[in-house]
Amino acid sequence: MRFVVPSDATSWVEVANDSHFPIQNLPFGSVDYGSVDASAVIRIGDYVLDLFELYDNGLLHGEAVSASLDDILDEGGPETLSDIRRQVFELLRSDNAKLRDNKGLRERVLRHIDDVDVRVPVTIPAFVDFCSGINPASNVGKMFRPDMPPLLPNYRHLPVGYNGRASSVVASGEPVIRPNGQTKGANDELPTFGPSKELDFELEMGFFVGKANEMGVPIPIDQVDKYMAGLVLVNDWSARDVQRWEYQPLGPFLAKSFATSISPWIVTLDALEPFMVKGPSQDPEVLPYLKATKPFHFDVHLEVWLLTPKMSKPQRICATNARELYWSMAQQLAHQTCNGTPIDAGDLYATGTISGDQSGTFGSLLELTWRGTQPIVMEETGEERRFLEDGDRLTMTGYAQGPGFRVGFGEVTAEVMPAPSFP
Amino acid sequence: MRFVVPSDATSWVEVANDSHFPIQNLPFGSVDYGSVDASAVIRIGDYVLDLFELYDNGLLHGEAVSASLDDILDEGGPETLSDIRRQVFELLRSDNAKLRDNKGLRERVLRHIDDVDVRVPVTIPAFVDFCSGINPASNVGKMFRPDMPPLLPNYRHLPVGYNGRASSVVASGEPVIRPNGQTKGANDELPTFGPSKELDFELEMGFFVGKANEMGVPIPIDQVDKYMAGLVLVNDWSARDVQRWEYQPLGPFLAKSFATSISPWIVTLDALEPFMVKGPSQDPEVLPYLKATKPFHFDVHLEVWLLTPKMSKPQRICATNARELYWSMAQQLAHQTCNGTPIDAGDLYATGTISGDQSGTFGSLLELTWRGTQPIVMEETGEERRFLEDGDRLTMTGYAQGPGFRVGFGEVTAEVMPAPSFP
Repeated sequence: MRFVVPSDATSWVEVANDSHFPIQNLPFGSVDYGSVDASAVIRIGDYVLDLFELYDNGLLHGEAVSASLDDILDEGGPETLSDIRRQVFELLRSDNAKLRDNKGLRERVLRHIDDVDVRVPVTIPAFVDFCSGINPASNVGKMFRPDMPPLLPNYRHLPVGYNGRASSVVASGEPVIRPNGQTKGANDELPTFGPSKELDFELEMGFFVGKANEMGVPIPIDQVDKYMAGLVLVNDWSARDVQRWEYQPLGPFLAKSFATSISPWIVTLDALEPFMVKGPSQDPEVLPYLKATKPFHFDVHLEVWLLTPKMSKPQRICATNARELYWSMAQQLAHQTCNGTPIDAGDLYATGTISGDQSGTFGSLLELTWRGTQPIVMEETGEERRFLEDGDRLTMTGYAQGPGFRVGFGEVTAEVMPAPSFP
Repeated sequence: MRFVVPSDATSWVEVANDSHFPIQNLPFGSVDYGSVDASAVIRIGDYVLDLFELYDNGLLHGEAVSASLDDILDEGGPETLSDIRRQVFELLRSDNAKLRDNKGLRERVLRHIDDVDVRVPVTIPAFVDFCSGINPASNVGKMFRPDMPPLLPNYRHLPVGYNGRASSVVASGEPVIRPNGQTKGANDELPTFGPSKELDFELEMGFFVGKANEMGVPIPIDQVDKYMAGLVLVNDWSARDVQRWEYQPLGPFLAKSFATSISPWIVTLDALEPFMVKGPSQDPEVLPYLKATKPFHFDVHLEVWLLTPKMSKPQRICATNARELYWSMAQQLAHQTCNGTPIDAGDLYATGTISGDQSGTFGSLLELTWRGTQPIVMEETGEERRFLEDGDRLTMTGYAQGPGFRVGFGEVTAEVMPAPSFP
C-alpha cells in the first residue's frame, strides 16, 4: 500500500506556498556537505534531513537505513524508501515536538539547501531512453520522412527505446559542454568535424529503478511499481546535426552521449499517487504483457525556460504536461524486462520528449522551431534561437498541483559551454 | 613502453604446447574459490595465480595491488596491469626458484583452474557495440536493403556504434535463456509475443577500458592504448526476429539486451603487441581525429563451433580473423570520446560481427545461412540449422599464433535454454 500524506498536513519546517517540496512530497536525494559525501537525505522546503544522522540519533528505525541511497536501495528497495518516508513524515508534522523542539538535534540532522551540494541521487548502472510521446514521434516523422506516414509501423505496438549513456548523466547545475562531432550537410560531399551547430534539449521525465530483478525473469506489468524508486525530470541533450549523420542504422549514439541532465530529487510513487491518471486510449489494442489494470500516467505540469546571456530574466518557451505521453512508465518497464533483461537499482528509464499537439507545447527546439525554419524570438532582446548557443541557460521545471500544495521536481538547469578545441 | 615476454621464455609451471595461456600471455581475470570472492588473478596454463595472495606474501610490489581487478584498475589503470604482469612473469620463468621451490607458498598462491569459478573479470559500467566489420555490414545491407547500395553513406566515415546493455554481459559457461519478444512476420497483420524463433550469435572481439578520462575531454587516437586494459572474445547474442520489428528508428534494443557472453580472460596489449598489424586501407581517407600513426588491428585467428544435443562432438561452422575488421579498436575509442563522452575503467567496447568475405568465414548465422535460406548441415547427424535451437551449445575460440606458442583467449561458450513461459 502506498503512503499518501494527507492534503491538509503541515510541517513545523516552514515551507513557502509555491514550494515544490512541502510535507506532501518528501523526495529523496544525495548531498555532500563538510566532510560528508553522498549522504542520503529527504528534502522539505529549503532544507534537507540527513537520514543516517536521524538513524544514528535514534529517530529513524529499520535495518536498511544506510548512509547512502545506493545502499538503502540495494538493501531495502522501494519498500524501505516508503517506510523511511513515512517515519520522516511523522517527525516533520507540525504537532510532533520530538525534533521540532530539540535545537541541538535539529542542527545535526537538518541542513539548509544552500549549505549542501546536491548530486546525482544514486549510482546509475544503466540509462535507457524511450520515445513514449506520440506527438514528438509524429513531428519528427513529418520532418525527416515527409513522404511516409509520420509514425513507423511498430510505434503503436511497443514503446520504442534505446540504451543511452549512463556515465554522462549529471545533476542539475552542472554546465553542459557543447560536443564536437562529425556532421555532413545535405549538399556537402564529405563530412567535417567540429562543434555541433544544432545543440538541442529534450524535455523528458524518467524513473529510477529501486530493486533488481533476476536475469531472465520478466516483470509483469502490474508489479512494476514494486521496482520503481521514483521520478525525476530529464533533459536529454541532443546534437541534431551529429544525430542526423550517425544514426543509421543503429540509432542515436554520440549525439546523446556527451551529457544528460536530471533534477536531483527522486519524487516517490507514494507522493505522486494522487496525481496518477489514465493515459490516452491506445489503438490498436496492445499485447497482453503491455496491458496494465491501473492508470500509470502522471498529471505533471512541465515548463521549459530559456535565458540567453543578453537577457535579464528567462523566457518560457514550452508548457506541457506529462500525461501527453502515449506509453506509460509501467509499459516501458514491462517491455524492457519482457525478454529477461536484468535491471538494477539505480537504473534510469526516461520517457523521450514530452510534447503536446501544438507549437508552444513542444518539448524540443527541433519541434518548437520546426527544424530551425521558425526560430523562437526572445521578447526582451529580439534575439532569435534556432538551436542553443554558448552561454544560453536552459531550465526545466515541473510539478503536480494538489489542493493548496505542489508536489514538485524542482528544476533541471544548465548553461551551455563552448566546445573544446580538438583535435 | 609495452612489456613483451620473449618468444623463447618458458615457465616452471607446465603448459601444454597448444595452450592459450603460456608465459607469453599471462592474462588477467577474476575468480571465486572457497570463501574468496572476485579475486584478481593471472592465468598460466591450467592454473591461476592469486595476485593479492602474492602481494600479501611479499612476492608482488606496488601501491595499487588490491584483491579485486576493479580496484586495481581504479587505482592504477593499465600501467599497473603492465607492472604486475611483468613481476608475475619474473616469478614464473623457469629459472626463478623463489616460488617454484617453495611448496607451501605455491599452494597458497597457485590454484588449478578446475578449483575456481571464473567470473566476468570486472564490473562493467558501460557496454558499447560497434559495427566495425565491413563484410557483415555489407552482407546485412544486401539482405535487408536489396535495392540500395549495401553500405549506408556514413559507413566509411565513422565507426557506427550503439550502446548495449552492460547488465546482461555474462561470462563463458553461463547458459543463455532464449528471450521472449514481440515479432511480426512480413505477412502478419499484427505482431505477436513469444519465444524468439531466430536466435543467433555474433562473433566479436572487445576491449576493456582500464582508466577513466575526464568528462568533456576527448582522447587523441594515438593515446587510446593508455586507456585500454586488454581484449576478450564477445558473443553478442541476437534475436533477429525481435530486432527486425523493433529496431526502427532507434536501433537494436531488446533483441540484444537479454545476454552477451564474453571470454573471461583480459589479454593485455602487452601480450598482443607482437600480433598488431595494419588494417585494410581506408578509402575515402578518414578525418584527422580517426587517423592513427600506429597499426591497431590484431592478427587473431577466430573459430565458431556448434554442438547440437544429438551430436557427440562440435562442428566448426566459421573460421576467420580479427584483422578483417574495417575500423580498429583505436578508432572506436577515439570516436567514442571525440564528443567528450566520459569513459570508465571496466567499460567494454566490442567490434561488431567479424566476417571474412566468403561463407565459411561469416561470423553469424544470419550471414552463414543467408537469412535462413541456406541452412547449415551438421555432418554427424544430418540436422539442419537456420538459427539456434534449445539445447544447442555455441562455442567461440581465438588465438594469435606465435613461433611455438599461442597467445589465446580461451573460449566463450554457452548452451541455449528454453524461453520461460510468459506472461
